[in-house]
Amino acid sequence: MKKVISLLSLIMLTLAQGFGQTDDSLIIKKISDEIFMNGTAYSNLRYLCKKVGPRLSGSTGAESAVEQTARMLKEAGADTVFLQPCMVPHWVRGAKEIGRATLTNKTQINLNIVALGNSVGTPPNGIDAEVVEVKNFKELDALGADKVKGKIVFYNYRMDPRYINTFQAYGDAGAYRGQGPSRAAALGAVGVIVRTLSPVLDDNPHTGATRYEDGKPKIPAVAISTNGAVELSKLIAEGKVKSIYVKTNCKMLEDAPSFNVVGELRGTEYPDEIITVGGHLDSWDLAEGAHDDGTGCVQSIEVLRAMKALGIQPKRTIRAVMFMNEENGLRGGSKYAELAKQENKKFIMGLESDAGGFTPRGFGYSASEAQSAKIEKWQPLFKQYGALEFTKGGGGADIGPLRSLGTALIGLNPDSQRYMDLHHAKTDVFEAVSERELNLGAVVMTAMVYLVSKYGL
Amino acid sequence: MKKVISLLSLIMLTLAQGFGQTDDSLIIKKISDEIFMNGTAYSNLRYLCKKVGPRLSGSTGAESAVEQTARMLKEAGADTVFLQPCMVPHWVRGAKEIGRATLTNKTQINLNIVALGNSVGTPPNGIDAEVVEVKNFKELDALGADKVKGKIVFYNYRMDPRYINTFQAYGDAGAYRGQGPSRAAALGAVGVIVRTLSPVLDDNPHTGATRYEDGKPKIPAVAISTNGAVELSKLIAEGKVKSIYVKTNCKMLEDAPSFNVVGELRGTEYPDEIITVGGHLDSWDLAEGAHDDGTGCVQSIEVLRAMKALGIQPKRTIRAVMFMNEENGLRGGSKYAELAKQENKKFIMGLESDAGGFTPRGFGYSASEAQSAKIEKWQPLFKQYGALEFTKGGGGADIGPLRSLGTALIGLNPDSQRYMDLHHAKTDVFEAVSERELNLGAVVMTAMVYLVSKYGL
Repeated sequence: MKKVISLLSLIMLTLAQGFGQTDDSLIIKKISDEIFMNGTAYSNLRYLCKKVGPRLSGSTGAESAVEQTARMLKEAGADTVFLQPCMVPHWVRGAKEIGRATLTNKTQINLNIVALGNSVGTPPNGIDAEVVEVKNFKELDALGADKVKGKIVFYNYRMDPRYINTFQAYGDAGAYRGQGPSRAAALGAVGVIVRTLSPVLDDNPHTGATRYEDGKPKIPAVAISTNGAVELSKLIAEGKVKSIYVKTNCKMLEDAPSFNVVGELRGTEYPDEIITVGGHLDSWDLAEGAHDDGTGCVQSIEVLRAMKALGIQPKRTIRAVMFMNEENGLRGGSKYAELAKQENKKFIMGLESDAGGFTPRGFGYSASEAQSAKIEKWQPLFKQYGALEFTKGGGGADIGPLRSLGTALIGLNPDSQRYMDLHHAKTDVFEAVSERELNLGAVVMTAMVYLVSKYGL
Repeated sequence: MKKVISLLSLIMLTLAQGFGQTDDSLIIKKISDEIFMNGTAYSNLRYLCKKVGPRLSGSTGAESAVEQTARMLKEAGADTVFLQPCMVPHWVRGAKEIGRATLTNKTQINLNIVALGNSVGTPPNGIDAEVVEVKNFKELDALGADKVKGKIVFYNYRMDPRYINTFQAYGDAGAYRGQGPSRAAALGAVGVIVRTLSPVLDDNPHTGATRYEDGKPKIPAVAISTNGAVELSKLIAEGKVKSIYVKTNCKMLEDAPSFNVVGELRGTEYPDEIITVGGHLDSWDLAEGAHDDGTGCVQSIEVLRAMKALGIQPKRTIRAVMFMNEENGLRGGSKYAELAKQENKKFIMGLESDAGGFTPRGFGYSASEAQSAKIEKWQPLFKQYGALEFTKGGGGADIGPLRSLGTALIGLNPDSQRYMDLHHAKTDVFEAVSERELNLGAVVMTAMVYLVSKYGL
């Protein structure tokens, strides 16, 4: 009899789980229909790109972005909207950079460059020096101080097109932008030119943060477009380059006050269990920050809007967060975790969309074994939306600091093929975003948040 | 002992299969590296779009496309390149269409229209008639001949955004473009205006073939842009539209001679087993036919090029085929199957890429149970390239006629989110194609062709 009862309970449990999945599947379809029929992510993104525009930390654009996304969160139906003050680095580019190569035949050619974020500027008259090209750090080290001292180092490392996921290629090549200046400075270089991190050949230099190492001289650092890098390399190989002149006008000002923007839907049963869903509000100054990361912001707002519009009252509290300063300091993400530690609440999950508003392929998660198993059990629900690649590892820069609180971190993984073409470049504009791809990302984010709000994690 | 031997053979077989997969996995990685490092699909596509341009069946563009892709196939290293003559419909648009609504207050507004492919033109002075709007066929039938006779029918059926795969939405809404004219003509209508099949609101009318039903009057048919449809519908609802004037200048000429273009790599062991891989060479006249279907053509050429460049000698014969006339007649596909029947060879598999040059998501196949099982066994090899969605059903219009020969049909399924935005519209240009997405499609196509050439099907 006991066995029969056990068997019966097992059957009932299985049925219940079965019904649960069907039920969830229906609700997720409703979420999808709501977002595709009435979604506001695309129009919010248009506003953020075209009316607000570039919004680097400390800029007036960033200030306006704070106000406007607070408004959008209210319109989406958040129960409360609040700001979290934080101080942010305030780097300014100043006037357009000048780059010129003087050839041995005395002609000059323009170099298509932009200063790297956080870089010091050149002296007012610029720098004029011989150039040494290296393909990688090994070649730099082989040259040694003798051949580098007083020169401009040109890192011509091509982003490796053989990686299928372009974030891997970015991770590989990114060292030259990040560490390149300090490693060259350690050998006495007076400046560096870094080949743009992009898989395509074009005339758009991409900016992005460089990181000076403590104790090393800070030397000016610029990125050159991929076409420009190819051309410069050819001229150098032909022995035609006499010297290079670079003038940049950027500088780091005093830290400025800024904010994370948070919109909350209060949980009905477990209000003290917090689900965070977000993107970062700041963007580089060259473009509209559409894919990086306007899309993550408007998708996170859409999560709240869709749940509210469908009358889904979450059991657990959901916070849509627009993080400030991901690009050159991560102060917003750090502040969010710092404040989280002070609250007497449980931050159970953080979900970030900061890999572009492209068609979603799945999720990557950094979580405990038990949490991971729970997340993986939901995978079938995401299949028909194309977000079926569930992989261990991942999260997001802004939610990263939450990990120390035991929060499960989940990153939305959109298709990566087109991201690096426009990342940190002037081509990262509203027109480069597909409305359907953006919405589909919002659908699977809302579905994930819905599941965690219902079942916990 | 017998048992031990059986067990031993089983282990060895498993090992061999294991090695087989590893081996194949390594070769597919080589294919991927080759295509991402040295691929010519993107430059071939640039040529096809920018130098050849639109190439509707019977046009000089189509003639030039035949010559140029024959050249590309030779350059890719095909053992032989040959043409298959076929007669094709020759429809011409003539001068730009005129569409105008006269309002009750006597003002006129322009309608953003294009003639549908295969449509008859209006009389030289155009047609001027009252308009009736219907949302669907049900509404048309409810109106009946009394209210339709002598009028222009405006089909304002919105492409349903709730379908995740946009081809399903296209299949659903496509009936209005295909059957709309004859169904309206049967009730006495003098012309039809069909809302553009696109999920986005913009000013680009999309063309595409309509099909007149035998025995029904052939009346002029045009597509109106989605923005135009919304505006017109609003004016009609407000009772402001007095009449509509449409003038089109298109006509169907006599059939014209044309060709399929075939490039062959001869199989070393089973030369009489033929693998077909292709796309269609013709394209609508409004754009460059980049995604529809320049990408399928250059990817098919790339399959041959990559195999040749890597020195892979296929056991079975591979034919890369540029099919003519998919858009408004399917004469090339029919001719290819007709000639295949006459050859004393076995056409084991056809693979078509005709859903855009977007990031590949997987394959759909129409094949026997045994063939399907074999294909599905290869799925793990495609995972790291993101083409992991293997689904039953699918193929391609041009390879469809091969099915009667028992050929397994496989369709490449790229991500569908952006396709319908530009399908058959002037925005289907080279710039809308991502080099990496195009190449990744070519990688998985080459991998599939390689596996079938090695193992048969």
